[in-house]
Amino acid sequence: MAKQAPGGYNGQILRVNLSDNSTSVEAIDELFCRKYLGGAGFVSYFLWKELPRRTDPLGPDNKLIFAIGPVTATQLPGSGRNCIGAKSPLTGGFAKTEVGGFWGAELKRAGFDAIIIEGKAEKPVYLWAHDGEASIRDASHLWGINTKETRDTIRADLGDNLIRVAGIGPAGENLVRYACIMNGLYDAAGRGGLGAVMGSKNLKAIAVRGHKVPKIANPERIKEMRKFVLDNFDQLPGLRNYHERGTGAWMAVYENTGNLPVRNFRTGLFPGVEKINAYTIKDTIRIGMEGCFGCPVECKKVVKFEEPYSIDSAYGGPEYETLASLGSNCAIDNLKAICKANELCNAYSLDTISTGAAISFAMECFENGLLSLKDTGGIELRFGNADAMLKMVEMIARREGIGDLLAEGTSRAAQKIGKGAEEFAIQVKGLEAGLHEPRLTPGLGLGYMVNPHGADHCCNIEALAFTQVKEIKELIPMGILEPFPLDDIGARKVALLKLVQLKQLINDSLVICMYLPYTFEQMADITAAVTGWDTGILEQMRTAERILTLARSLNVREGLTAADDKLPQRFYQPKTDGVLANKPLDPAKMDKAKSYYYALMGWDTSTGVPLPEKLEELDIT
Amino acid sequence: MAKQAPGGYNGQILRVNLSDNSTSVEAIDELFCRKYLGGAGFVSYFLWKELPRRTDPLGPDNKLIFAIGPVTATQLPGSGRNCIGAKSPLTGGFAKTEVGGFWGAELKRAGFDAIIIEGKAEKPVYLWAHDGEASIRDASHLWGINTKETRDTIRADLGDNLIRVAGIGPAGENLVRYACIMNGLYDAAGRGGLGAVMGSKNLKAIAVRGHKVPKIANPERIKEMRKFVLDNFDQLPGLRNYHERGTGAWMAVYENTGNLPVRNFRTGLFPGVEKINAYTIKDTIRIGMEGCFGCPVECKKVVKFEEPYSIDSAYGGPEYETLASLGSNCAIDNLKAICKANELCNAYSLDTISTGAAISFAMECFENGLLSLKDTGGIELRFGNADAMLKMVEMIARREGIGDLLAEGTSRAAQKIGKGAEEFAIQVKGLEAGLHEPRLTPGLGLGYMVNPHGADHCCNIEALAFTQVKEIKELIPMGILEPFPLDDIGARKVALLKLVQLKQLINDSLVICMYLPYTFEQMADITAAVTGWDTGILEQMRTAERILTLARSLNVREGLTAADDKLPQRFYQPKTDGVLANKPLDPAKMDKAKSYYYALMGWDTSTGVPLPEKLEELDIT
Repeated sequence: MAKQAPGGYNGQILRVNLSDNSTSVEAIDELFCRKYLGGAGFVSYFLWKELPRRTDPLGPDNKLIFAIGPVTATQLPGSGRNCIGAKSPLTGGFAKTEVGGFWGAELKRAGFDAIIIEGKAEKPVYLWAHDGEASIRDASHLWGINTKETRDTIRADLGDNLIRVAGIGPAGENLVRYACIMNGLYDAAGRGGLGAVMGSKNLKAIAVRGHKVPKIANPERIKEMRKFVLDNFDQLPGLRNYHERGTGAWMAVYENTGNLPVRNFRTGLFPGVEKINAYTIKDTIRIGMEGCFGCPVECKKVVKFEEPYSIDSAYGGPEYETLASLGSNCAIDNLKAICKANELCNAYSLDTISTGAAISFAMECFENGLLSLKDTGGIELRFGNADAMLKMVEMIARREGIGDLLAEGTSRAAQKIGKGAEEFAIQVKGLEAGLHEPRLTPGLGLGYMVNPHGADHCCNIEALAFTQVKEIKELIPMGILEPFPLDDIGARKVALLKLVQLKQLINDSLVICMYLPYTFEQMADITAAVTGWDTGILEQMRTAERILTLARSLNVREGLTAADDKLPQRFYQPKTDGVLANKPLDPAKMDKAKSYYYALMGWDTSTGVPLPEKLEELDIT
Repeated sequence: MAKQAPGGYNGQILRVNLSDNSTSVEAIDELFCRKYLGGAGFVSYFLWKELPRRTDPLGPDNKLIFAIGPVTATQLPGSGRNCIGAKSPLTGGFAKTEVGGFWGAELKRAGFDAIIIEGKAEKPVYLWAHDGEASIRDASHLWGINTKETRDTIRADLGDNLIRVAGIGPAGENLVRYACIMNGLYDAAGRGGLGAVMGSKNLKAIAVRGHKVPKIANPERIKEMRKFVLDNFDQLPGLRNYHERGTGAWMAVYENTGNLPVRNFRTGLFPGVEKINAYTIKDTIRIGMEGCFGCPVECKKVVKFEEPYSIDSAYGGPEYETLASLGSNCAIDNLKAICKANELCNAYSLDTISTGAAISFAMECFENGLLSLKDTGGIELRFGNADAMLKMVEMIARREGIGDLLAEGTSRAAQKIGKGAEEFAIQVKGLEAGLHEPRLTPGLGLGYMVNPHGADHCCNIEALAFTQVKEIKELIPMGILEPFPLDDIGARKVALLKLVQLKQLINDSLVICMYLPYTFEQMADITAAVTGWDTGILEQMRTAERILTLARSLNVREGLTAADDKLPQRFYQPKTDGVLANKPLDPAKMDKAKSYYYALMGWDTSTGVPLPEKLEELDIT
C-alpha cells in the first residue's frame, strides 16, 4: 500500500502540416499526459484547443488526430488499439472512433503517442513515421486503389513487410461522408467519416514502424494482469464467446429480445437470423480467427469461399454490426452476400454501419415510393435484395448514380429527397445508429441522444450489456445493489449511463479494447502500473468527465444544441412485430432523462451547455 | 483480484421505548447494512424513516439513536467509536455526532449495531444492554450527579468494573441545548445537544457489556491494515503528532496563519498562544496519554495539578477545540483554568465548543454593553477573565442566572438579548462554529454553511487540512493534480468539499476515527475485508451521497431552507488584526459556491431541496 514514486511518464506528438509539407515533434509533459491520458483524451483536447471555430470538416483547416494511450503496445490484453478524431463531415461536430489491429502498437514503437495532421497536400501523399522520424511521401501511384493494394505497395516501396498501414480506399478519396480509416485490412476506424477527412487532405495512408520498447513503471503488474485475464478467460464475461465465435453469436438471442434491428429498425422478427449468425459462419465459411496486437481474445473472423463470389480472406469476415447492418436491417439473410459487402467496405474504406444504414434507408424510401427506379438506375432497391445491396456498396464508394446521394449519409440524403424521408433516417446528429435497439433499453437510447458524436453504440454498449446480458453482480461495484427493469429510464438508469460513459472514456483514453471487461479498479491499477502514478478511480472519473466535457464544449462551439440530442422518431413508434411490437419509447420520459443527464453532468438542464463552473472545476480553459 | 463471496454480514437493532418501558430486538438484513453501512448511515436512515414531522426535539417523540459500524470492535486502528443522532434542540434539524472511547466497541460485543431510544421515562432510568439482552433500570439515585459518579455507581450496582457507560451529567438533565453525551469521562459526543435529548427522556445513561467477538470475513486483511498503520506510523499524516501531543500542537501555527479564533472570531493575534498549546501541556501538567479501543494513536491527554484548582485526572485533558474555544476565543491564556473548565464540561456533560462559544458570545455582548453587570449577576464578563469563564460553565450547566440564557445556545440567546446581539452569535443553523477560521479557508466556510447539522468542523476538517496542512500529493488520488490557492472558493474547491464530505460520511458510517488517514481505496478495502462484500469506491461514494441526501431531506422536512445555509456576518468582515486583517469572505463568491454545491449534489440550485430525480437515483423513498 506504499505509494508509488512518480514514473516520469511523458510522450511525443508528431505534428504534420500537409499544406507546407512539414513535420515536427513536440514533447508532452507528465502533467499533460496525466490530465488527458491519451487516445480519446488527446483527441478531445487538441480538437478543443486547436480547431478553428466552424471549420469545414472537409477543408484544410480540419485536423485529423491519431492517438494511442499509456497501455498501448504493452502485454496487456486489449492494448492493440488506437483512437482517431476530427471534426466530423457527418455531424459537423466532434468525432472520435477507436480501432484495433497492430497500427497503434507500431506507432508507440515508432516513438509517438499521437499524430496531428493539419492542412491539405497538393497531391496525394502518405506519411511514413518510423523510429522517431517522419516524412511525407508521394502517393500518386496509390490514389484510386483499394486498401490491400495500398498496404502492399507501401510495404514494397519501403522494403519492409512488417510496416503497419492505416489508410483509405476509394470511398475516403471520394469523400463519402462515412468513409472509414482502415488499420490493415479488417480493422476499421469506422464512425464519423474520418476516412473522408483523410481523403480531403489528399492523405492516402500513414505507414508506421518502430523498434522502441515502451517504458513501463511496473512491468510485473502488467504481466500479472495478463495472467489474470488468461487464468480467468472462461469466467470473465464475453471472452470465451468472442474467442470462439467473435461477435454475432447473440444474433438469435437479440432477435428474441427485440434488440436486433430488422428492416431499418421498423420490424423485429427475422426468420433468417440463424443463417447469418456467428455460429453459422463458424460452421460453414470460417477458416480461422485473428486478433489484435498481443491480445489472447482473437475475436476477428476470417472467412473464405469461392462461390458465387470469390472472397479475399485478407479482408477478414463480418462482425455483428456488419451482419446486422448489411444483413437483418436490410432484411438480407444471404450470408455470402454480407461477407462480400464486408470485403468491399474494407477494401474501399466504408463504415459498414453507416453503409448498411444508408442502404436500408434507401430501401425503405424505395418501398414507400420516395425513390423510384429512375432514381436507383433501374435497381429494385427492396428489402431482402442482396444483389441490390452489393451494388449499392459499389455505387456509394464511387459516388455513382444514387450512390452519390447515399454517400452523403442518411440525414443529408433525407433532406435532399424530402417528402418525409427524414422519418427513415435512423441517425442522431447525422451519425447512423449502431445496431442495437433503444426501444429495448432506453438507457442506450439516451446514450445515442447525448453522445457527442451521435448514435454510436460503442460509447454506451455497457448500458446495454449491463442491463441485458450481465448479471446484477456486475453492477454492484458501481453501487447498484438492487435490480431495476431493463426498460427503466428513470434517474438510476441515467446515473448508470453517466458511469458507463465515463468508464468507456477511461478505456478509450488508456486505450484499451472495450471487450476486455476490466473494472474501474483494474483500469486504475493498470494506469498506475504503466505510468508509476499514484492514481485511483476518483482521478480517472474526473479525467473522463474532463474529456467528455471537452467534446461537449467543442460541439457547443460548433453550433450544436440540445435540439441535436434527439432520437429519430422511429424509436417513439412501436415496432410492427416481435416482442417490442407495443413498446415505443416515451418521449416525455426520454426528455426528462435527458434533462437529468445534463444535471448530472453539470450542464445547463435546458440548453445542455456545460456550466462555467463545471469547466472551471475540470480545469478546462 | 478474484471476487469475494458475499459475507452474510447483517446486524441487530435494540429498540427501547421509555414511555412503555419496553425493549425489543430487530434484525437488519445484509442489503440494509450495505445500503447504509452503520453509524451516520443508520442514524440518517432511521431519523428519516421514523421521526414524526416537526417533532419537538426535547419532547417524547424525538428519537435518540446510537449506532456503530462494520469496523467497530475490530483490530483496525480508529475503530473504537460510535455515532449518535437525533433531531437537534439547537438547530431544529438533523444532528449527528461521533465519539470515541470504548463504549461503541462494547456495544458491538454486546451484540447490537444500534440502539433506538423512543419516548420518555416517567422517572429517571438507565439502560443496561449486555450480551444480546437489555433492561431499563431505575436511575433515581443517579439523577443530579456528575458523569464520573454515574459511571462508578452503575458499575458498582451491576458489579462489573468493565461496564462501559455513555451518560449525561447535570447539563443534560437541565436540558442545556448543547449538552453532550459522555462516553466514559473524556470522550464527548459533543455537537448538537444530544445530551439534552437524553435528559429530556429521563435517560441518565446507557451501560453496555458483552463478550461476542465480531465476525470478520477476512481477518487477515484487517491485521494487515493494522500492521500498515503501525509500520507507517511516522509517515502517515498526523499520527506521530497526535500520539506525542494530541491535538493542540498546531495552535501557534494556527495563530500565524490566521486559523486560530481569538475573541469570538473577531481578532487574530493571541500573544498567549504558547501558554496554552499542547507542547506546553506536555512540558508542564501532562501525566500521560490515553487512547480509544484498540487504537495505537492514543491522542488523548491526561493532566494533573493541584493548584489553584484540584484537577480530577479521570476527566482527561483539553483537546484543541477546547483550548481554542474556552481559551483563545475567550482571550484566556490561563491553561489551568481551561483544564478546569474542560473537567467541568466533561463532568456536567457540556459540549466544550458550544460552551466556549456561548461564553465568548456573552463576553462580546458584555463588552459592547448588550449585557450588563446586572444581567451577569455582578460578574465582569470580559475577554480574558478566566474566573468568569469558569463561573459561566457552572452557571450554564445549572441554568443559574445568565447561565439559563446562555444554555439556550448563542442563536436563541441573541434573539432574546436583541440589540443586534445576533452579530456576536458565531453559529450556523444554531450550531456554534468549530474553532477553525473560514476566512482562511473559504472551503471550510462553505462546509459550515451547507453541512446538515450546522457549523461542525468535523464534517469538513479535511477541506481545511487538505489545503492547509497536507501537501498536494494528498489530493492527487482525488484527481487534483495542480495546486490551487487556499483562499480559492471556485468550482474546484466546491467539488473538493463535496468529495471530502462524502469521504467523511464513509468514515462516519463505517465508523472510523477521522484522524486515521485511510484513503478512499483503503476504506473500500476495509469494508470488503470486514463484510465480505465485493465493494469499491464507487459504491461507497454512492452510499455516502445517499446518507448526506437523507440528512438534507430531513432538514427540508423539518422546515430548514437555503436561507439557513448561511454564515454569520462576522466572516464577511475582516479580522481586526493578524494576517487575515484585510481578508473578509466575499458574500457573492460564497453564494455562488453554495449554488454550485447544490448543483453538484443534485439539489435545486436555488432552494437547495434535493431533486426528485436525485432521491430516485439514490433509492431514497
